[in-house]
Amino acid sequence: MDYSYQQCVDACLECLNACNVCNVASLKEYDLAMLRECIRVSRECAEICGFAAQMLEHGTNFAEQICELCAHACEVCAAECSKHTHDHCKQCAEACRRCFQACRQLVAV
Amino acid sequence: MDYSYQQCVDACLECLNACNVCNVASLKEYDLAMLRECIRVSRECAEICGFAAQMLEHGTNFAEQICELCAHACEVCAAECSKHTHDHCKQCAEACRRCFQACRQLVAV
Amino acid sequence: MDYSYQQCVDACLECLNACNVCNVASLKEYDLAMLRECIRVSRECAEICGFAAQMLEHGTNFAEQICELCAHACEVCAAECSKHTHDHCKQCAEACRRCFQACRQLVAV
Amino acid sequence: MDYSYQQCVDACLECLNACNVCNVASLKEYDLAMLRECIRVSRECAEICGFAAQMLEHGTNFAEQICELCAHACEVCAAECSKHTHDHCKQCAEACRRCFQACRQLVAV
Repeated sequence: MDYSYQQCVDACLECLNACNVCNVASLKEYDLAMLRECIRVSRECAEICGFAAQMLEHGTNFAEQICELCAHACEVCAAECSKHTHDHCKQCAEACRRCFQACRQLVAV
Repeated sequence: MDYSYQQCVDACLECLNACNVCNVASLKEYDLAMLRECIRVSRECAEICGFAAQMLEHGTNFAEQICELCAHACEVCAAECSKHTHDHCKQCAEACRRCFQACRQLVAV
Repeated sequence: MDYSYQQCVDACLECLNACNVCNVASLKEYDLAMLRECIRVSRECAEICGFAAQMLEHGTNFAEQICELCAHACEVCAAECSKHTHDHCKQCAEACRRCFQACRQLVAV
Repeated sequence: MDYSYQQCVDACLECLNACNVCNVASLKEYDLAMLRECIRVSRECAEICGFAAQMLEHGTNFAEQICELCAHACEVCAAECSKHTHDHCKQCAEACRRCFQACRQLVAV
């Protein structure tokens, strides 16, 4: 795997992790009702990132379409998590933005 | 695939579906704070059922261990969903019980 | 879920199954060397179909992009499996074509 | 996550990667017929490692059962890949052994 390809896999794995951490932590928060959408999209983003990482790792023919999907999911999750002040939300939003960029870069190559 | 094997795959797929429906619906409920654990375990159970169905379908060598894991997850999810009166929780609990039995039966064969 | 949505989930699950059956059976064939690409794409298609079914089931916001990806994978797998005369290849190709159409129909709605 | 927990996730992700590399490379080898079982078990091990990493990452309640399953799959894959002289097989066997140990260690804690 070349540099940007491996970077993209790594960004997906980090984003998957941040989304899972945020999802689990959000379910324990006091302001749970504010976090409904955050809980929903962080799960969705985690699943899409996990799928993307796995497909990229075994050299899928559909890297472009998958990275576009993943970038899209990361964009939505970053936008949602940016609305909240919890640390796990902020960290999730940052991981999503990094993953978004890594995916976009791979598509552009 | 023989009868009980295919039955187990079907039970996993139905349980996966019921857990996903319950998870999504719970996130929209008014009594959200009561449903924290339900949201958590229904996601976990969905993921384990989906994994089990997929592994069984391609003839895994680890059917026994996977079915035991799946039965365990279904048991926990059924116990949690039984505490709530929402229709999606009741239906999820029933699907979990059926999947639990199908998995146990496959292990016993 | 409305009619065409559920049909699409079902088509994905059937295609996932046919791809897995074809993948496992191909690995046991005498003319293994002819089936390299078939083994590779049937695995890929199975993974994409499984992912699509699971995402559709919990009401993803990205149904369109995911169905386009899935249709694309099914098209490639159908084309490859059509080259071979094994029953599992023919059945896989047919399941891929049905799933392709169900996904396209969902996108068109 | 504490140290051994994160180590286990990392070992699963590295093993997933090594299994995928080995699977893809084996399908291109000249001595394909010798590698049937290698292709089959490396796919299975990759799927189980990927599942284990994802479940551990969101703090599953079933870590013990999942790690035992993963250790078992790694053991089988390491045994099969050790029979072959290809570099990707050797590296896969090593990654499987490391993952086996990390999973066993987590269970023992």
